[in-house]
Amino acid sequence: MRDITGGVCAPEGFVANGIHAGMRKNKAKKDLALIYSKEPCIAAATYTQNKVKGAPLIVTKKHLKDGIAQAIICNSGNANTCNSNGVELATETSELVAKELGIKEEDVIVASTGVIGQPMVIDPFKEHMHELVAGLKKDGSDDAVHGIMTTDTQPKEYAVEFVIDGQIAHIGAIAKGSGMIHPNMATMLAFVTSDVDISKEMLDIMIHEVVNDTFNMVSVDGDTSTNDMLCVMCNGLAGNKKIVFKDHDYQVMEDALFYICEQLSRGIAKDGEGATKLLTCKVSHAKSVWNAKAVAKSVITSSLFKAAMFGKDANWGRILCAIGYAPADVDVNKVDVHLQSTVGDLYVCHNGMGVEFDEEFATKVLSEDEIIIAIDLNDGDYSATAWGCDLTYDYVKINGDYRT
Amino acid sequence: MRDITGGVCAPEGFVANGIHAGMRKNKAKKDLALIYSKEPCIAAATYTQNKVKGAPLIVTKKHLKDGIAQAIICNSGNANTCNSNGVELATETSELVAKELGIKEEDVIVASTGVIGQPMVIDPFKEHMHELVAGLKKDGSDDAVHGIMTTDTQPKEYAVEFVIDGQIAHIGAIAKGSGMIHPNMATMLAFVTSDVDISKEMLDIMIHEVVNDTFNMVSVDGDTSTNDMLCVMCNGLAGNKKIVFKDHDYQVMEDALFYICEQLSRGIAKDGEGATKLLTCKVSHAKSVWNAKAVAKSVITSSLFKAAMFGKDANWGRILCAIGYAPADVDVNKVDVHLQSTVGDLYVCHNGMGVEFDEEFATKVLSEDEIIIAIDLNDGDYSATAWGCDLTYDYVKINGDYRT
Repeated sequence: MRDITGGVCAPEGFVANGIHAGMRKNKAKKDLALIYSKEPCIAAATYTQNKVKGAPLIVTKKHLKDGIAQAIICNSGNANTCNSNGVELATETSELVAKELGIKEEDVIVASTGVIGQPMVIDPFKEHMHELVAGLKKDGSDDAVHGIMTTDTQPKEYAVEFVIDGQIAHIGAIAKGSGMIHPNMATMLAFVTSDVDISKEMLDIMIHEVVNDTFNMVSVDGDTSTNDMLCVMCNGLAGNKKIVFKDHDYQVMEDALFYICEQLSRGIAKDGEGATKLLTCKVSHAKSVWNAKAVAKSVITSSLFKAAMFGKDANWGRILCAIGYAPADVDVNKVDVHLQSTVGDLYVCHNGMGVEFDEEFATKVLSEDEIIIAIDLNDGDYSATAWGCDLTYDYVKINGDYRT
Repeated sequence: MRDITGGVCAPEGFVANGIHAGMRKNKAKKDLALIYSKEPCIAAATYTQNKVKGAPLIVTKKHLKDGIAQAIICNSGNANTCNSNGVELATETSELVAKELGIKEEDVIVASTGVIGQPMVIDPFKEHMHELVAGLKKDGSDDAVHGIMTTDTQPKEYAVEFVIDGQIAHIGAIAKGSGMIHPNMATMLAFVTSDVDISKEMLDIMIHEVVNDTFNMVSVDGDTSTNDMLCVMCNGLAGNKKIVFKDHDYQVMEDALFYICEQLSRGIAKDGEGATKLLTCKVSHAKSVWNAKAVAKSVITSSLFKAAMFGKDANWGRILCAIGYAPADVDVNKVDVHLQSTVGDLYVCHNGMGVEFDEEFATKVLSEDEIIIAIDLNDGDYSATAWGCDLTYDYVKINGDYRT
């Protein structure tokens, strides 16, 4: 397996585009993206667990009942959520896409991100559909990813090449997500393409396995969004023998998908609204995976700890505090904690009590871009990793004035 | 019932003091407080649910087994948590208090607040115990409340006078709490005194009833502290017939205690670290009290919504989002939302969809010090209120650099 360029267009048979269609006032910012496969794809998705759901999710769920899709359309700038005409709009959008591409309306996946509850009209979609489709191209992933970005400062775009059943295969992906990020299903938008041949049943299982340990372990602010969606489209053009069991080929593809989703998850956490640091919390020797995950998520979600990391302050008491209120079975008197970065390893807590450390060295360790919080519960055989970011002035600035 | 001055010394027979003993470097800041009743008191307490518990809580629980106490000692500046000598220190502190006051060691309540996991020694307690006790006075509540403050900007001190069984009675209280505040038991330190005569059993029940609807409905940052404690001491000097049933007198006292705890809860939320606004979330017509509380707490805890309130931005979509991920049984298509302040009422959401409003008026409504978020679930008969505050630059500033 090796990293390659090309994003969602890296797999065979996929093209993409992104344009400014007028959902946003700023004309320099793209706000509409389209991904298209020349062949119909096996497709599967996961959605937000928020009870308030964006209208596009409702339409997409309906369209994906048969497990087949051929295009993904996504706008940014307005989430199409809590609008009385939301479902109508999302349906009309997929009709426009289908007509222009000459495919079935039920094979269009619709997604949307931006402010919730703002009035929205069909006009920008109608007026720009021809332009959007006409511009579909093999090097269009970059335009597409810019079309789905909101407060993201970096495009999140990855692709890998690997061999499966003797054939060269690919997985590519783009994602957006910066605020309103919390582990409860997809927690953002991620569109994944592949030329692997796989059954709908196997793809469904694979997505849920991978998402549970990647996207569902990311938290920026504890707010589970209304429009989260991860979807994967596989057009089978790699020519491998179709994956229909959990065999070696399944594992090969899952490894590649896991790698892509882990990169996207790290990318989303690192680009969390206002973030200056990626925080990676690795919990080891827990009594169960569930316990390990609960502890990792609790630490990564603590506002107090996140603010301390922004301040490069090795205030490990806040880590213990967050472990203590995690919904997990933990013996706090067995807990060891290390803070790590490329500079070195800072041992701060042994058996739940403080270990003396050099404050100057601590500041150096915590001045790096990625901090690993290594928590050893010394109480079992299970591990988990969660990703998050620091809490900064800019998070408040961005969210104190998001709509204007 | 009427508000009076005097704080914890308002009830008959109580005196208090607060001094600088050297736990903190800043000599202008008091860091040690003592409350004393000339008569032994019926006493009860609630404690944090965090699995990491400050050593003083362990000692206090032991001392309160018999339901009797006569003094409360509390230091700020160092939480005495995650220290290997913590229990020893807390025990030694209560011995010093007992010896100096000539009371039983088991009748001393010990509390502590400040940084977690910092080394701590007995010396400041030893050297200043005589001075602390010698300074006990009837107008000492103000000194005591300053002795327990950490990042609090305002002392929280209340007292009421009321008639019970024909006798004039009082309840007084001081509290601290500004950060690391989240509903899961007491969520801060609160010391309540009263001259009402009541049994230990009735006082226990009353505390839990009152705390569930007051302190447990406050959130500043979602972090449940390790040292939270609310304790109430009643010395019976009001001369009422001892309360031993849930009778009219019980109700009279509970109303007074509820009022005091509600004021303290609002005070803590309003003085949340960095806060510029008190947010009061009132949920009505829920299917159950539990549902109402879950929704109110979810909204008040949302970082995105809190940041929007700081920015005076009527971004009600974030309220819907937080309702949607609350662990509650809610029909989001029935939800109405109003934002209210002394300036007026802003209707933003009807049946889960947006209502058009004037942005200029919205900014005016949201520019006030207290914002009420009125959420009508239109789906039942139950209500709940939660208190919180906005998320500001200063929260990040305070917590990015707390230890130094």
